[in-house]
Order: sequence, then C-alpha cells, then structure tokens
Amino acid sequence: MSLFKSDDNWILTEKKFSAQSNPAIEGAFTQGSGYLHIRGSLEEHLIDALQNEDYLRMPANVTSEKFRTSKAKLGTYVPGVFCKHPTLNNQLVNLPYFAGIEITVDGEKLDLEKSVLQKNERSLNLRNGLLKRVITWNTKSGAEVNILFERFVSLTQKHCLFQRVEISGNRDTEIELKAGIDADVRTNGYDHFREIHFENTEENIIQNKLTLDSGVDVTIVSQLLGGDLEWNPIFEKRRARLVSKFQLDNGSKKVIEKRSCICTGIDLEKIDPLNELISFRHVSFGKLFDEHCKVWDERWQKSDIEIDGDAESQIAMRFSIYHLLRSHADGDPRVAIDAKGYAGDAYWGRFFWDTEMYLLPFYSLTAPDKAKTLTDYRIQSLNGAKSNAERYLTEGAKYAWEADPDGIECCPNWHYADHEIHITADVMYGLIYISKVLNDKNYLAKDGFEVILETSKYWIHRIDWSKGLENPQLLGVMGPDEYKPFTNNNFYTNMIVRYILQISFEVLKDRVDDKELMEKLGYAKDYLPLRKIENEIYMQCDDFEIFGDAQFDDYWSDKTRTFASQVSQERLYRTKCLKQADVLMGMFLFPDQFENSEIEIAYDYYLPITTHDSSLSSGIHSIIASRLNRSDDAWNFWKQSASIDLNGGSAEGIHIANAGAAWMVFILGFAGLQSPIVSEILCLKPKIPSKITKLCFPLIWKSQKVFIEITEEQVVVTNKDSAEIEVQVNSERRKIKAGSIEVFKIN
Amino acid sequence: MSLFKSDDNWILTEKKFSAQSNPAIEGAFTQGSGYLHIRGSLEEHLIDALQNEDYLRMPANVTSEKFRTSKAKLGTYVPGVFCKHPTLNNQLVNLPYFAGIEITVDGEKLDLEKSVLQKNERSLNLRNGLLKRVITWNTKSGAEVNILFERFVSLTQKHCLFQRVEISGNRDTEIELKAGIDADVRTNGYDHFREIHFENTEENIIQNKLTLDSGVDVTIVSQLLGGDLEWNPIFEKRRARLVSKFQLDNGSKKVIEKRSCICTGIDLEKIDPLNELISFRHVSFGKLFDEHCKVWDERWQKSDIEIDGDAESQIAMRFSIYHLLRSHADGDPRVAIDAKGYAGDAYWGRFFWDTEMYLLPFYSLTAPDKAKTLTDYRIQSLNGAKSNAERYLTEGAKYAWEADPDGIECCPNWHYADHEIHITADVMYGLIYISKVLNDKNYLAKDGFEVILETSKYWIHRIDWSKGLENPQLLGVMGPDEYKPFTNNNFYTNMIVRYILQISFEVLKDRVDDKELMEKLGYAKDYLPLRKIENEIYMQCDDFEIFGDAQFDDYWSDKTRTFASQVSQERLYRTKCLKQADVLMGMFLFPDQFENSEIEIAYDYYLPITTHDSSLSSGIHSIIASRLNRSDDAWNFWKQSASIDLNGGSAEGIHIANAGAAWMVFILGFAGLQSPIVSEILCLKPKIPSKITKLCFPLIWKSQKVFIEITEEQVVVTNKDSAEIEVQVNSERRKIKAGSIEVFKIN
Repeated sequence: MSLFKSDDNWILTEKKFSAQSNPAIEGAFTQGSGYLHIRGSLEEHLIDALQNEDYLRMPANVTSEKFRTSKAKLGTYVPGVFCKHPTLNNQLVNLPYFAGIEITVDGEKLDLEKSVLQKNERSLNLRNGLLKRVITWNTKSGAEVNILFERFVSLTQKHCLFQRVEISGNRDTEIELKAGIDADVRTNGYDHFREIHFENTEENIIQNKLTLDSGVDVTIVSQLLGGDLEWNPIFEKRRARLVSKFQLDNGSKKVIEKRSCICTGIDLEKIDPLNELISFRHVSFGKLFDEHCKVWDERWQKSDIEIDGDAESQIAMRFSIYHLLRSHADGDPRVAIDAKGYAGDAYWGRFFWDTEMYLLPFYSLTAPDKAKTLTDYRIQSLNGAKSNAERYLTEGAKYAWEADPDGIECCPNWHYADHEIHITADVMYGLIYISKVLNDKNYLAKDGFEVILETSKYWIHRIDWSKGLENPQLLGVMGPDEYKPFTNNNFYTNMIVRYILQISFEVLKDRVDDKELMEKLGYAKDYLPLRKIENEIYMQCDDFEIFGDAQFDDYWSDKTRTFASQVSQERLYRTKCLKQADVLMGMFLFPDQFENSEIEIAYDYYLPITTHDSSLSSGIHSIIASRLNRSDDAWNFWKQSASIDLNGGSAEGIHIANAGAAWMVFILGFAGLQSPIVSEILCLKPKIPSKITKLCFPLIWKSQKVFIEITEEQVVVTNKDSAEIEVQVNSERRKIKAGSIEVFKIN
Repeated sequence: MSLFKSDDNWILTEKKFSAQSNPAIEGAFTQGSGYLHIRGSLEEHLIDALQNEDYLRMPANVTSEKFRTSKAKLGTYVPGVFCKHPTLNNQLVNLPYFAGIEITVDGEKLDLEKSVLQKNERSLNLRNGLLKRVITWNTKSGAEVNILFERFVSLTQKHCLFQRVEISGNRDTEIELKAGIDADVRTNGYDHFREIHFENTEENIIQNKLTLDSGVDVTIVSQLLGGDLEWNPIFEKRRARLVSKFQLDNGSKKVIEKRSCICTGIDLEKIDPLNELISFRHVSFGKLFDEHCKVWDERWQKSDIEIDGDAESQIAMRFSIYHLLRSHADGDPRVAIDAKGYAGDAYWGRFFWDTEMYLLPFYSLTAPDKAKTLTDYRIQSLNGAKSNAERYLTEGAKYAWEADPDGIECCPNWHYADHEIHITADVMYGLIYISKVLNDKNYLAKDGFEVILETSKYWIHRIDWSKGLENPQLLGVMGPDEYKPFTNNNFYTNMIVRYILQISFEVLKDRVDDKELMEKLGYAKDYLPLRKIENEIYMQCDDFEIFGDAQFDDYWSDKTRTFASQVSQERLYRTKCLKQADVLMGMFLFPDQFENSEIEIAYDYYLPITTHDSSLSSGIHSIIASRLNRSDDAWNFWKQSASIDLNGGSAEGIHIANAGAAWMVFILGFAGLQSPIVSEILCLKPKIPSKITKLCFPLIWKSQKVFIEITEEQVVVTNKDSAEIEVQVNSERRKIKAGSIEVFKIN
C-alpha cells in the first residue's frame, strides 16, 4: 500500500505524486469496460515523457527483463486488436491516446512536475471506476486555480470514455485548453500504425481514422462539449487537437466535457463512433454516469468480499476484484484476459495459463457465464493449437504458452514455448472445471470434444514410450517453476496430465476407434510417474536432487529484488531454487490425492528454496499454508500477494493472475471452499486469520446462489436460490431450503 | 565432388554453371591473402541477384536455420572489421564488392543465365589461387566472342586484387565495359555503412571512402589499365563505375586490367590504397602474379599432402589446405579464423572452439608461428573474457562461445552462450598445445599466465561444490553435442576441464597464494566425475540414459537433410541422438587415458545414435575409426568429410573446421601421428586405407622439420633439419641424424 491511501474501503488515492511512481499509478488506475481499457494517465500528460520512442525490444526473460523506464506510459487497449512485432510476434496494440486535456493558464502549462500545486490528488473509486483528480494550482501569474478532472469508461456505452473538467480561479485568468487524439504512440517501441488520418468533422469534433499494419481499421472520435467555447483544430502528423482560449473571470467556473468513442474493424458489435456520440449528445454526464454505476453495483453485488478487521485487506481485495471485473471482455469468446489485464504493454497482451489456473475460479464462482467465455476462447482457438502442433511436427493440438486470439504460439523465447507443455493440460483442466461448475456434461462431450480428441493425440505423441507401455515419461519439460527449464517428469505436469487424461479417456472411450490412442491414454493416465525420494518427499522432477545448492546467502544480497535479477540465468537453471510453487501447485489443485502429511513435508522442503520471483507464487502458498493450519505463513503470503500491485508493481500493467489469486486466497484459502474439481457439493473448511473478524461473500455454486458469512465462531449460509442446496462446513453436512439461512458453529 | 571436376590434382573446375549451385561455387572459390578475402563471384554478376535486400535476421539455431537463398552472394571481408547487428551482436562486415566487371557486346549484356554460351568454364587453381574463367559467347548480333577472366588476391600485396580480362571476337563488335565499386551490399541483410563517398580521382580510378556504423573508415580504390581506353564515371547513390565503349575489330584482342586495393582504419600496417596502386602501376600483371605464386609455392612446400591412389582424395585434401592457407591472417594476433573461413556471412565472422580443436593442429605442425598467432589472439582478448565473466556475475575469465576480436560473447542464442562452457577449457587446451609444439614452457608461465589464473578462478566458481570438496560437479552444461543442451557432468567437458586444470595447477602452485583456489583446483582436476554405466560405457552425461529413443526410422525420413531439420528442437533435446562426437571427442583428444576396448565400446554405443548433423563430426569419427582399425568406417567418414564443401555445402562459406579436420584425418588418422599433448616424440601409428598407395607430407615436430612417406609396407622419414630427431613408428623407436633418411618397415 505504500503508493496509496484509502479513507474508506472503496476509494484508492495516490499518496503523493512523483514521476517515478507515476507509471505504477497509471497501471493501478486503469479503467475499462471489457471492450476498451485506458491506463490512468494524467489528462495533461508530463511535458517531457515522450511516447514515440522507437526501439527494438528483443525477446528476453521477462522475470529479469529491465523495461524502458519513463515517467509516463500511455496505454489504450481494445482486446483482440493484435499486430505482428518483428522480434516478439503478435502483440496487443497500444492504440492512440484520446484522454488528453491540456490546460494552460496565463501562458503557463499545467505540469505536475513543474507547476506549484497546493493540492494534487488522484483517486480511483473501485465501486464505480471513476477516476478523479483534484488540483489547486498557484500559477506564476499569481492566481489560485482549482481544477477537477473526472472520467470513466462506460459500462453502458462500452466504446466510450467520458471526461469532465471543472476550472475556477480566484482572479481573472486567460485559459487555453487543448484536447484531442494522440496517435504518436508505440507498442513496446514499435509503430504498428500504417496510415493515420485526422479530420475536424464538426467544430467541436476530431475524428481519427487509422489503419494498423495488420490491415485492421480503427476509428476514434472525440467531441468537446460545454462552456460555450469556440474550438479550433491543430493538426500535426500523428496528432490532432482542438484548442480553445477564453477568459475565466474571478470566482466563475467553467465545466467542459470530452466524450470519446472508439471502434475497430474486428468489433463484434458494429457501431459508428460519430453517430454513437451524437446519439446521446443531449444526455448529461451525470445521467450517463448513473447508468454506468448501476452496472457496477450489480457486479459488486455478485462478487464483493466484505472483510472486517483489516482495512488494508479490504481495499486490496476490492482492488483485485475491480480489475477482474474490469478486464473481462464480457460476451466475447474470441479473447481471454491477458497477463497484464489490459493495463500495459509488458506481456504483449497475450493469454497464458493464468486464464485457467488463476482467473477461472473467480469467474466460475461469481459469474459462470463470464467464466465460460474464457474456456470458449480455448475451444474457438483450437485451430491455432493444431497449427502449433504442426509447426512442432507433432500430432493433435498444442496450446500456446503465449497465445494470441487465434491461439497461435507467440512466445518468442523458445524455451518456454517448447518446454512449458503443461499449458495444453491446463487448458483441458479449464474445460473440465467449467463443465463441473455449469453441471454440464455436454460441455466436454460436445463443445469440447474436438479439443479433448486433439489434445489427447498430442499427449500420446509427446509422451515418451521408449521404456515400454507401462513406463510413459514426459521428458524435456519446464514446469510452472521456470527456473528448471529442461527436466524429466515434472511433478506438476505429470499430475495434471494424468488428471486430464483420465477425464479425456472417459469422454473418448466409447466414441473413438483408435485402439493405439486409447491404449496409450489408458496407460498414461495411470502410469505417468510422480517420484518420491526417501519415500516421503515428492520430487519436482527426476533429477531435482542433482542440482546444486542455491546459496542464497552468497548470491541473493538484495532481497527486495528478484533472485533472477542478481544471478545469471545459467546459475538459476542449475541450482535448487524455485521461481514459484510447482509440487505445491499440483497439491493445491488436487488436495484429495495427498495425505496432509505429504503436503506438509513438501511445503517444508520447497519453501526455503522458493524465491517467489513470480507474482503467481504467494497466493498459492497462502492457500496451502491455510490448509496446513500455518496461519502466520498464510497471512504473510496474503500480505505479499496484496502488495504486489499496490506497492509499485503495476507500472507495466496489472498482475491479473495475482488478482485472481487474491480472491482465491480468501475463498479457497481462508474460507476454505473446496474446489469443484474435488467436491461435488459446496464445502467450506474455514481457516479465518486472527486479524479478520468477519468475512462475507456471495457465491454461485453450480448455478445456485448463496451468501456466506464467516466469523471465528460460525459460518452462516443463506440460500439465495429457488432450490434447495446441500452445504458442508468442515465435516457437517446440511440441506438448506430455498431462501433459508443455516448457521454452522465451527468453534 | 558433384559440383566440380578436376583434370589434374590442382585445378578445381565448376562442372556446369547453374544459378542454384552458384553460391556454393562462390564460397568454394573464395580467394584471399589473409588480409583480404573475396568470394569467387562472377565478374559480371547475375542481373537479378540483388545484394541490397534489407531484412532482420533473427537469432536462430544455425544447424536448422534456413538461409535466404539467392543466386549469388557477393562477399568481401577484412578480418577484424566488425560492426554491431541489432539482433545478432557484433559481426564481420561484408564490405563493398570491387571485383565487378560488366561486359556488353552490341548492346547485349553478358549474363550467364541469359546469354548463349558455347563454352563457360570457371576454375580455381589451388596451387596459386588463380580464379579463371573462359567463355565463348554467341551474341544476338551474331558474333562469337571469347572472354578470359583471371584474378588473384595477391600474397605479396595483401590489400590488392588483380584482375585481367581478354576479349576477342570473330567479327567487328561494339563493346561496353563497366567496372567499379559496389557499396550497395548488406551483411546478413543489414546495412552497416553509415557514410559512403565516391570520387573519380583520375580518369581511370574510382575511389570509395566509407564509414561503418562502428566509426571505422574503409577506403577502396579501383584502377583500370590497358587497352588504350577512355573511361567515364557513372555515380549512383551506393555504387560508382567507370565505363568505356569501344569497337573491337574482327580478330583483334583487347586486354584490360582492373587493380584494386583496400585499407581500413584498423589495419596494423597503414597503407594508402591510391599510392599503393600507383607504386606498381608499371609492373606487369604477369610479374605481379609470378611473385605471388612464389609465396604459394613456399606455403605448399610446407604443407602439401601428396596422396597416391585416389585422385578425389588428393584434390579434396588440397582444397582443404588451400582454404586453411588462405584464411589465416598471418602476423595479426587480433583475430583468429572464423567458422566460415572468411567466405560467407553465415557465422557472423566469429571465432569458435574450431580454432583450438580443428585448426590448431594443422598450423602447429606445418607453420607453428601461424599457430601461435591463433593462441596469441586468445591471450590478447583476455579482457573480453573477463568482461564476459562479469556479465555472468561470475569470477575470472569466461571465453566466448562466439567471440569477436575483443573476445566478447556475441552468441545471440543464450543456450549456447550460457551452457557451452567447454570453450573456456578449449582455449586453455590450445595454449597448452602450442606450448608443447613450441617446446616453450614460458608460453604458459609468462604469456599465458594471466589466462591460466583467470580461467582457473572461473572454473572454481563455475563448479558446483554443494556435495563436498571431493565431489565437484559441472551442472547445466552443453557439450560439443549441442542436441543435449542442459546436462550434468558432460563427459567431454569434464575430461578437458580435468586436463587443463592439471596443467593450470602445476603452473600456479608455486606462484599463487590463494589457498581456497589451489585446494579446489586440486580437487577438481582429480575428481570431476566421468561416469560409466554397466561398468563399461562412458556416459555422455549423468542423465543420458533417461532420454528417449531417437526413433530415426519414424522421424528421419530424408537422410540427405539433417535430423534437426526434420524434428522439433524440443524432440532433439529429449532423445538419445547426438549432433556430433562428444564422448568420442574426449577420447580423440586423450587416447592415452583409455583402453582401446573402452573406446571401442563407446564407438559402438554412440555411433548408431549420432546424426553427424554437424560438419565437425565426420573427421573425428574417421580418426577414431582408424585408431580402432575400422578401416571401412574411417574411409567412409573421410569421404563424408571431403564432400561437405565440394558437394554444395559452401554456399554460406567454407566449413573451415572441417578443412582442418581433413588434414587431421590424414595426419592424425591415416598416418597415425600421435598428438603432441600425448607424445613427447614424433610418433606414427599408420593406418593407411587400402585405396591409398602412398602418402607423403612434410611436418614440423617441435621446430624440427621432417618429411614423411608412407606406403603399405613402410614409413620413410627424412630428417630435413640440422639436428638429430627421435622418431617412433608403431613400437619401433629410432634416432635420425640431420639430413638422414630412415626406413621403418611396417608390414
């Protein structure tokens, strides 16, 4: 929380502006409608933070990559709008920035680094996504000028950004406003705009039409309203603005609105941005905002977690849920949610295993229809997975470690793309998860059938059979722990492959004639090895014991930075150090397959050598620690997880998987909800941390709505549905009638 | 030999011109003086073979990389002239092409693809490096025009290319000649020329000054002489030519010369190209050529291998020796010999382990002073190796897998750069080799001392000691077999590291106070493990048995192409298949450390799973096979080795390591010369193949010159030196007086 403060439990306020932390604030304050996402950048921008720097970003290990640093990073994203980068493959395009509003008073330009500011606040209301700035500026001309900026990306007009600025001063001043569209931006240093045209279609309207190098067209329209102002256009090569100059009398106030709308050639719903804006030209900002807020209210009702006892946890949790709600492209199965939650260029807007392993639980258990679009995305991109398999000269379908909307492998680092094969099993796990959540067997038998068939072919081809049918092996594998890139029989991979092949076998067995396939599936699901040493510790891979000691004392001098940034990659690769949970990740998914003592032994063995260099690590560790009654560890890992993006980590975007993990920490960890993979009925095994006095949250369990309140003493379950539901708390199982409440005593 | 024929044992002639095979001929016919190297391209070029294509070549696995194909690839190289490529790091620059001479007769341009040619021969005389072309051309105008081109890169004027063209016809024709300098070329698709200026300093002279993007200046001057012609310049942006038009009477002959000279800002010997050309303006082509031939004669006297019984072997051997002699930058220890022998862009002109392992024996035993510049290069680039170690956050000096002249790691593929650590031991092996060849202990104790100290520090830091002092391990290693990228205790690496640490320990023990260093050196040299399974087969690495079967029958359908081009890299990495000798490479270097039976067992175990995808493989296998009396294998591997560059492999340059291996096959394999690492005295254990009736060659053994003739029955050794020499043939040892001849009967 070091960058933020919060007076209530909903509004996050920047503690103190600095150019250094500005990119992190921009990322954290990203607004979005699912269709359109805009980083929380300053309307007036910082004068010398250029956005048009051309450079060739090369494939690098992201864990230790040093990004270009800038005081500001403008970012405007529409999910699915991808172009090919020359060294990095397909990436989400950073589109023109149209939230800009520059203000000059008596010839002095507002700039947060140079202007004298009595007050300067930027805050995001998580409840409704309103980004608000309150400024009191002592100009060189001697005036005290008050400025209020407000903006939101509308949930009712999802292509639109609405902005409002109020200016008043304590003496007569000359004001100049400039507002328009800036297409002089890059994506990871690369220019994807092939053609750029601007037009001043009406006095107060700027229209930008551009063609991307993929051939896709984008149209952006910005309209300025209010204040009875006269607007004149200034056109530059890659930027166009409307300018207005006026005198602001002492004590009077000007209120100006900027309304913008964007569409692209790949939109599912075709709109004309100009017509769109004109259609509600006479609807007030307030009314538009109210309608927008209603949608947010509905969302929060379905997904808010109320946490009593620790205000920091409360705001951190809402921050996570806000971004989960924001970043989902509702109703569009052509995309999933990228690793940075559409809030930065860093992971190229691609889809990782995060989708299944870190995001799916939240959506599945609060808004199952949204969860389904994520797995539908995998089904609709099966052809991409098949073409990946073809490029690897292998059979079936190989899902991409870093997928674009077509499912094509875009990871420019071959070692991840080649060896992190668990993704193909993770995808299937997602399909199984949804089929359980929706209680819909057809989802596998019908919608997902071809995925099952093709991924089964892939696995049978990828598994090594040279030691005989009963000794299938997965050789040359990188598990979730990316610090061991080439290992044999990775625990996590073998675990999840066994599981998904069991389910696949069941689906295929009466429908597929291929004897060899079925025979091999049968063996693989049972015999892929999970190796234990000393008869008690599950090994991450066959050769894990061979690696050298990590020697953290010698090589990890600065624990505030990742271990990976302080040793060479080749050292990482040959020492016993983990980036994130691997054996524990497998045990997290399938706790029913292990004795508690086995999990405990693994936890004690791996924890001291785990660096948590990945943002995916602390959440899972918290949940495992909860399950093991290691409540201090569970709480500390939660605090680590909660701080990732609130403590400066969001400069390049939101760690959206960690946001999903935060939700999981509370629901699967502290509330102890058993995964739908493991439990048929709703089952809670709460492990409420001592700091938390009460935990309340809604859930949808296999289409049945419930509301749950947990305190140290009891669990109160309200059946919000029209049918009876069976619920288990710890070992106590009860049926709850529609509309009824049951209280389970737990202490 | 399929691209060539040879009527005598010296002249290699292109069998039949085709655009497809032209790049391979250009590579094979590369001429050079050690300072300047020019590919054997056509003077008139092919009309549509553009050389100015810009593209971004990306780091790729060279074994399976598909290169841009073109009908022609101009290449002009001066060793040491490097520039930074944006994705590939420092690379040798392809300089402007100045061998061009275009001929137009009666308005028709000579073009080998379009013109009607009665005769068209291109040949290279290996004895003197003369490239000659003989053409009889039936022009559209009805004339029969005879053209003779001759050219050589002079060994007496090493910066100069001398060219001569004779034209005659059977009727009156209008001739137009164009000759100049073409700077519109790229290096691996990249333009390294920052500034380009042309000047027509005298009527018949074109001067090109250019500045590379490294800041280095290059000057090229071309002068046209003879034929009483008038020359007029044509300047284009990146090209300048002199043009002359004249009438050629029926039966008369025009003889024109083009003389060119190049210098660069990094030359050791500073010359002015213009003055240089003017200084011998009145010396005839014939005289210049004769002087040049004398130097070649001297070279061949020291290094020719005469092979009776198989003409193909004879020409193939001379082809190899020609390129070894050509590509050495005599007297310049700032560079070694790049992997493509300065005959192509493919390996970026960088220096690999080839230098020590494949090239050093030839130079050491025929021209030790030349060998020494190669190891001196490593000593003078120690600072680069230190800075590599720094970048790897390790101590001491880490030699580069792909080095530029400064010794900086340039390999853009991190897996080779990070893991192929044997290079640092190979470099030390080279220093030890030279110290033995020169019989100069000071070379290690003085010249090489800092290399020994710094590389020892590196090894002690790189070795893993977590299992205790007596259990040193080298983890995460790629051996010479690059199809196993991350293995523990690679046999070859551990072998050579043990050896060089033994020698290093001896050199350092009385001079270094660092107790820990010396203690660890002491353990490492003795205890780095060499693992055997079933108590008989040396394993390539700890985990070799774990890998899957290669299944060549299923996956290697087309044996004319590499296995690597037919399977995914990830499959290569997890199956029991080798790119080249690895265990056998260690046994090749240190045969004294193994029983013959052990070598035999290893040979039988690894051979069936070795793909020989590397050009470095067949030579070593031939030698091992000779030693094991597997004479058919030895011969077949020699034939494979001999065919690599004579059968189309030279398009991207000469496989210079294979050229060195060819020499080794005959001297270390068939003649059975024991390595100076293993044997103090000159010792031969001949294994003459049945196809060869006689083998004669000169040698310098520890500064003593001998001449050796081997037949099936006997070995005749002539002591060409002024001191007595002790020689062993098989188990028979004799002293030979200065100037005397001894005959050893062997059958």
